[in-house]
Amino acid sequence: MRWSSYFLHTVREIPADADAISHRLMLRAGMLEKVAAGIYTYLPLGLRVIKKVEAIVREEMNREGAIELLMPAVQPAELWEESGRWDRYGRELLRFKDRHDRDFCFGPTHEEVVTATVRGRVASYRQLPFNLYQIQTKFRDEIRPRFGLMRGREFIMKDAYSFDKDEAGLAIHYEKMIRAYGAIFRRCGLDFVIVESDVGAIGGASAHEFMVLAETGEDAVARCAACGYGANVEKATTGDLTAGEPEAPAALGRAATPGAKSVEAVAKVLNVAPPRIVKTLIFETEKEFVAALVRGDLDVNEVKLRNHLGAEHLRLASDAKVLEATGAPAGYSGPVGLAGVRIVNDRSVLRVVNAVVGANAHDEHFVNANAGRDWDDSEVADIARARTGDPCPRCGEPIEIARGIEVGNIFKLGTKYSSSMGCTFLDENGESRPVVMGCYGLGIGRTMAAVIEQHHDDDGILWPAALSPFEAHLIAMNSNDPTTREEADRVYEELRSKGIDVLYDDRDERAGVKFKDADLLGLPLRIQIGGRSLKEGKAEIAFRKLRTPEPLPKEQVVEAAAAAVREARREVPVSA
Amino acid sequence: MRWSSYFLHTVREIPADADAISHRLMLRAGMLEKVAAGIYTYLPLGLRVIKKVEAIVREEMNREGAIELLMPAVQPAELWEESGRWDRYGRELLRFKDRHDRDFCFGPTHEEVVTATVRGRVASYRQLPFNLYQIQTKFRDEIRPRFGLMRGREFIMKDAYSFDKDEAGLAIHYEKMIRAYGAIFRRCGLDFVIVESDVGAIGGASAHEFMVLAETGEDAVARCAACGYGANVEKATTGDLTAGEPEAPAALGRAATPGAKSVEAVAKVLNVAPPRIVKTLIFETEKEFVAALVRGDLDVNEVKLRNHLGAEHLRLASDAKVLEATGAPAGYSGPVGLAGVRIVNDRSVLRVVNAVVGANAHDEHFVNANAGRDWDDSEVADIARARTGDPCPRCGEPIEIARGIEVGNIFKLGTKYSSSMGCTFLDENGESRPVVMGCYGLGIGRTMAAVIEQHHDDDGILWPAALSPFEAHLIAMNSNDPTTREEADRVYEELRSKGIDVLYDDRDERAGVKFKDADLLGLPLRIQIGGRSLKEGKAEIAFRKLRTPEPLPKEQVVEAAAAAVREARREVPVSA
Repeated sequence: MRWSSYFLHTVREIPADADAISHRLMLRAGMLEKVAAGIYTYLPLGLRVIKKVEAIVREEMNREGAIELLMPAVQPAELWEESGRWDRYGRELLRFKDRHDRDFCFGPTHEEVVTATVRGRVASYRQLPFNLYQIQTKFRDEIRPRFGLMRGREFIMKDAYSFDKDEAGLAIHYEKMIRAYGAIFRRCGLDFVIVESDVGAIGGASAHEFMVLAETGEDAVARCAACGYGANVEKATTGDLTAGEPEAPAALGRAATPGAKSVEAVAKVLNVAPPRIVKTLIFETEKEFVAALVRGDLDVNEVKLRNHLGAEHLRLASDAKVLEATGAPAGYSGPVGLAGVRIVNDRSVLRVVNAVVGANAHDEHFVNANAGRDWDDSEVADIARARTGDPCPRCGEPIEIARGIEVGNIFKLGTKYSSSMGCTFLDENGESRPVVMGCYGLGIGRTMAAVIEQHHDDDGILWPAALSPFEAHLIAMNSNDPTTREEADRVYEELRSKGIDVLYDDRDERAGVKFKDADLLGLPLRIQIGGRSLKEGKAEIAFRKLRTPEPLPKEQVVEAAAAAVREARREVPVSA
Repeated sequence: MRWSSYFLHTVREIPADADAISHRLMLRAGMLEKVAAGIYTYLPLGLRVIKKVEAIVREEMNREGAIELLMPAVQPAELWEESGRWDRYGRELLRFKDRHDRDFCFGPTHEEVVTATVRGRVASYRQLPFNLYQIQTKFRDEIRPRFGLMRGREFIMKDAYSFDKDEAGLAIHYEKMIRAYGAIFRRCGLDFVIVESDVGAIGGASAHEFMVLAETGEDAVARCAACGYGANVEKATTGDLTAGEPEAPAALGRAATPGAKSVEAVAKVLNVAPPRIVKTLIFETEKEFVAALVRGDLDVNEVKLRNHLGAEHLRLASDAKVLEATGAPAGYSGPVGLAGVRIVNDRSVLRVVNAVVGANAHDEHFVNANAGRDWDDSEVADIARARTGDPCPRCGEPIEIARGIEVGNIFKLGTKYSSSMGCTFLDENGESRPVVMGCYGLGIGRTMAAVIEQHHDDDGILWPAALSPFEAHLIAMNSNDPTTREEADRVYEELRSKGIDVLYDDRDERAGVKFKDADLLGLPLRIQIGGRSLKEGKAEIAFRKLRTPEPLPKEQVVEAAAAAVREARREVPVSA
């Protein structure tokens, strides 16, 4: 492709709100254009990468026997009412009415549509199992779209849905998808971890996420270098925390803590370390008030708490509600004598002897409070947020918390959708049973963004060969010089005739501008024609990562480039 | 692909409202599933054909230098307000609000988005010309979706937009697209005609449609077999109609025509032939009443009339409005003495001597009325609907009206969008000028439907090789017979190893069912294993069009099939 007849414009000025490096580089390299908040046009150069990611995804999905179809973006409300999600799904579901005043939404996911398709076609266990996938445009009306393709509103996703007669079949599909995703992300050059995740709004029995570790990641991931344990922090458990020195329980007492509402303030006023304090947070669910207790140096993980409670909604109680529940202002809540409020103790609380807790009275705390003796400790759960250094729940070694970009997620849905939507089959004994489902998502644009997050330097992108929008970048250093242009034209045609997909910078620009743009675009292989080299009968080959051009007799440059391209094509890792 | 592990279910019962043969066959062959009115899932078999159409479209667009990008489905109202279409586009534009109460629509077309992208990136004539295209999902909220993919609401379209510095450049792009479309439709096996069309709501200077002639076509097309003239009936002109016998003008008179409101009734009451009557239809536009006059045997073409008037809206006046405009009930309107109403004479009217016209009085007509003498004939236009047998406007031979499916359309937009949206460039003299645009649409799903309309018989589809979802259909006539299964498995693996994309019917079904399904699916090449042939050491090759199986020694069947596939791959016509 000749740049002069291509639609490619690098950009110097980019909006200040482009806050992720991948977003900034995609805008600067002319790959992406913002149309509205979280809504983008993939410009030609960007679309080339998207298509390469899609091709890899298709290959690996097909290799694992998944079958491609294409479902619509616009979905009727009726299906979402059947699954119960029309009411439950929040404002991220973009809803609208058609001209006949019927309710529809722009699909953020396709469990309902695919389940409706399968129930109309599958009647017997003999028609199972299968795994259907699509690569399709979705919309989630994010309240705060950001990071470009990482959290857009309209986005391209590969979503797959497996259908089995039993859990054993689902387990096989689940393993196949773990294998496919691993192969896909490896081929894309991504360094990733697989972590356990919370099943969230989609529901189901178990779930994993594929996380690309990067500073701009929106998720926090707990991982253990020793044993390989990994989990989204929303879900991560830890081993038992170490207790303090053994100590005999002392008598409960009161202490004045004027104005001390936080753990830090109480620790200071009473001169105790935060692990000696038990923090009490008052939450509301749709049913009740809940006092969540954790050791003072820890935080409550609301996802774990909500899952423990089995609650639909959970939120921190407002100051007024805290007053209603405890009789005291927020900041002085505690479990001692607390009536009409469900008390949930984190495991850490049981290890604190002679604790400081709020006294449910203004400016007062209890000291030497002890679980069991002074408050009900019958309900114990793991509701604390994991921290770097906490013991791994599997091997006890310290875990580490890192930032991650979720590029894929897989869920064992079980019969959640098939039961509510009547997607059943007759088993070997002629009995009707709901189909056992799994679902498997993979963000195409987010994968592209994650690759840039992991592959860039100060000057631009460093594309892994498998995703590079072109295989080679040919630069005519001074297109106005007839000798240079003639030689570059010749090399261009020869590269093309060898089936190499090459971007030819034939623009009327200074060599410096062209080199800067080449660094920005980040194609791995570069061929430079012109300048002193050409006068000496030479052309240059360079690699984006090194950037030290290697001069070669100009007659040899095409073959050298072709050899490098062949090498790059071979280097693409395939599935294990 | 083994049918037993594929997601493919042929269907016996299809909804009564599936009214086009292509729609019925796609549903029966398990290619398509209705999700809501005009909204479909492309099932795996159907998606394979869609992908083949898309690949052909990409190849031919790229060959003509067009550059692919991908714009979003969801578009902000602001852009449509700039172009003026937010108000003008009717209820086919699906509008909605996001969670922040901002207006958006689901794009039915992308002139606004692409123009906004280009204006931000192009500043100089040196950056022109180029042609941007995408293959993308669109939505038009049709009031009555029908014929399956032919008039759906959500649909896949290839849309391209060219940008030039002048009309000469646009003309080159226009010719390139005519060539690309011709190549695409020929490769898809379509018999099509190119016709002039009305520019309609998109606007611009000139337009053509690619029409596939088929009885289910929603468009009427005028074409001349003698000279090749073709036009959508909305746009078609004709040569001069023959006049009646020469006759001297007689004195204007009145005639009682009790209850005679139609041409037929008047002709009967007064015993005159319809061509002696001048029909007067009262229309309303946003500005005025219009009396449209045509010879009694002709009809008014509202599109041509609206274009002649330059009106935004045009509709037949209601009975009450007719009374207001003419002073008489509908059915008795006429031009004589008609005040305050704009009179537009079709060319045919000037050839009627001593005409019968309405008298603007209940139950009365004038006789011996003559244009010019009895009413204002200063405004003459071609506003009559072309009919089979009318003279061709180019060569005078009789034209023919046929039904057509519009599979593609191309428009010279000129500066309609670039002017209103400020998409300008600096020309060679440093002067700012609006970019000259063209736009080029092609329905992917509609092309697939049109192919079926032209390629089917009573038993099913007859896929042209280029679009066939698989290259060969292998049938194990009785999968329960171990010898048959073993031999069929062997042939399947051998075909696959030769790179042939084969659908292997290994289902536990009777041979009769398999043959019927094979006819329905319509893959061009069939290999049949089993039965008496196999006992004789033979296998059968058959072609969907002939269906007479040819027995071969079973060792030869793979090579024979491979040869047929190679032949079919060669047969695919490429662009001229």
